[in-house]
Amino acid sequence: MHSVQAWAAHSPAGKLEQYAYDPGQLGPEEVDIAVEYCGICHSDLSMLNNEWGITAYPLVPGHEAVGRVVALGDIAAQKGLRVGQRVGIGWNVGSCLHCEPCLDGEQQLCTSVQPTIVGHHGAFASHVRSHWVWAVPIPDALDPASTGPLLCGGITVFAPLLNQDILPTHKVAVIGIGGLGHMAVQFLNAWGCEVTAFTSSADKQAEAKELGADFVASSRDAGEMKQLANSFDFILITVNVSLDWNDIIGMLKPGGKLHFVGAVLEPVPVHVMMLVLGKKSIAGSPTGSRSQIDRMLRFAAHHNIAPIVEHFPMSQVNEAMDHLRSGKAHYRIVLDA
Amino acid sequence: MHSVQAWAAHSPAGKLEQYAYDPGQLGPEEVDIAVEYCGICHSDLSMLNNEWGITAYPLVPGHEAVGRVVALGDIAAQKGLRVGQRVGIGWNVGSCLHCEPCLDGEQQLCTSVQPTIVGHHGAFASHVRSHWVWAVPIPDALDPASTGPLLCGGITVFAPLLNQDILPTHKVAVIGIGGLGHMAVQFLNAWGCEVTAFTSSADKQAEAKELGADFVASSRDAGEMKQLANSFDFILITVNVSLDWNDIIGMLKPGGKLHFVGAVLEPVPVHVMMLVLGKKSIAGSPTGSRSQIDRMLRFAAHHNIAPIVEHFPMSQVNEAMDHLRSGKAHYRIVLDA
Repeated sequence: MHSVQAWAAHSPAGKLEQYAYDPGQLGPEEVDIAVEYCGICHSDLSMLNNEWGITAYPLVPGHEAVGRVVALGDIAAQKGLRVGQRVGIGWNVGSCLHCEPCLDGEQQLCTSVQPTIVGHHGAFASHVRSHWVWAVPIPDALDPASTGPLLCGGITVFAPLLNQDILPTHKVAVIGIGGLGHMAVQFLNAWGCEVTAFTSSADKQAEAKELGADFVASSRDAGEMKQLANSFDFILITVNVSLDWNDIIGMLKPGGKLHFVGAVLEPVPVHVMMLVLGKKSIAGSPTGSRSQIDRMLRFAAHHNIAPIVEHFPMSQVNEAMDHLRSGKAHYRIVLDA
Repeated sequence: MHSVQAWAAHSPAGKLEQYAYDPGQLGPEEVDIAVEYCGICHSDLSMLNNEWGITAYPLVPGHEAVGRVVALGDIAAQKGLRVGQRVGIGWNVGSCLHCEPCLDGEQQLCTSVQPTIVGHHGAFASHVRSHWVWAVPIPDALDPASTGPLLCGGITVFAPLLNQDILPTHKVAVIGIGGLGHMAVQFLNAWGCEVTAFTSSADKQAEAKELGADFVASSRDAGEMKQLANSFDFILITVNVSLDWNDIIGMLKPGGKLHFVGAVLEPVPVHVMMLVLGKKSIAGSPTGSRSQIDRMLRFAAHHNIAPIVEHFPMSQVNEAMDHLRSGKAHYRIVLDA
């Protein structure tokens, strides 16, 4: 392939500028994808700002891409993919397939996993390159223009339902109704659960109900949280701010599970006796495995689940990033190539 | 029944003195048990000292009892128990059997669970009274003189193996080789796991291997813990002191589980990103359910697992408590009635 036309930042919090690079020769297990759409995830902003100290510049963000296969390596061509096929790319573009987690079907935990935008050029670009295992066929029933955010945000909130053995009979809570939470509410509603949405924004309460929440509550209202003590089998934390964790753990029923998918940076002070006496647990997870992504896409298609998105042309990527920074994105942003 | 001859403390950290009480009329669901043996658990000492602020005086400690049924209420007599039968009592003596956890078979999480020594007179006594569900038949193959400690300490470390889906192919670690840990090592060895025992006592290392540990390590050696990064599927914490939790969570493999059974009172500062990136979890649990206790006793009988115990006559209960306080108990103490 000739050069890729991308948008890159050259320094922390820098403006995204047009940037052409040569991706080099396509490896036998690799796939080149022409980007049609790319969602913007909060982690694109965190990486742009080097909040996690792992950003390499120039940084090409973008890891919620939908596009069409334009080239396949020799091996990749034998893995069910064909040129012209619509595929998606999420948080990762590479796994070795031979380490223990990979062999176990947990390619997202690969000991040499290659994230899409960490030391690799992402999908705010004309093209993105991936190992075949992370080039995920998109079901025809899904609208490609709003599928990008399922590939990172969506799977991040969906994988815990599989990993944590969530049942339709469970009472669940989603804390934070934003880019991640508004998808979690839809998934959990379709999963058959009784869903309580916690948001600190009064204006999101009606919308949370439209998305499938049975009840709404406020994560800033200590009185309400205490009233909900012993109420939930599963609480999903989609925010990255510190909350009153004791009140939140207190809302778990005996045997209940608290699950983090947001990058809460401040340590959570866990009172072990609350876990011991209530047989409770606290867990976290990154994105899902390849088969979990496949299952999530089929589940979304079957239940007409889609993120609520706002579109920007990719040429206005800096305006789109500003919109995300403003906190006013409703709920996810998709760049159109 | 006429009066029970017990040993009671009348104030925090007080000496245990002879104390007779009238247990009142036996309820239809209740069982009276003549105590033959009673283990001493560290929580008897914590309750004696009112460390958890929940002790009612006079306190009769003792919740690892083995004895014989001497009286059965009308309902209890229909639940497979008979007068003269040998039964055991652990942490609990009462569950309602009609709340959601009880109906789910999790009687230890009963919303009105009655612990043996919290607002109830325990088994440092001639007799102890229990609801029938917590009067656990003791398999004939077990030595009644050393079975008491299985009923609280034993089930506390055994239940997590069932709850956390531990497999024989897992690599596991037990941190703290004391009253709880020395039983955990035996159970995990018989479970088929590769077991690493962590102890800060050099003189316990050889003994840990005799109990079934494949490897020994030190929980005070930061270098050794860092070398063991990404090593374990499951780490059981049996101590109640603060350790370097980051190093310990770092020793978990991707998907690994950290499990607390000790009463660690200082909050554990959990770095959420370690959980999220590694798909790790932190959990705790109290004692087990009735069916878990039954299964644990059968497993112990099948694998010849028993706690290592020192015996004191019950009349020397204060000397026995002093021995526990000294930290020199090896590994559990049993009082002989």
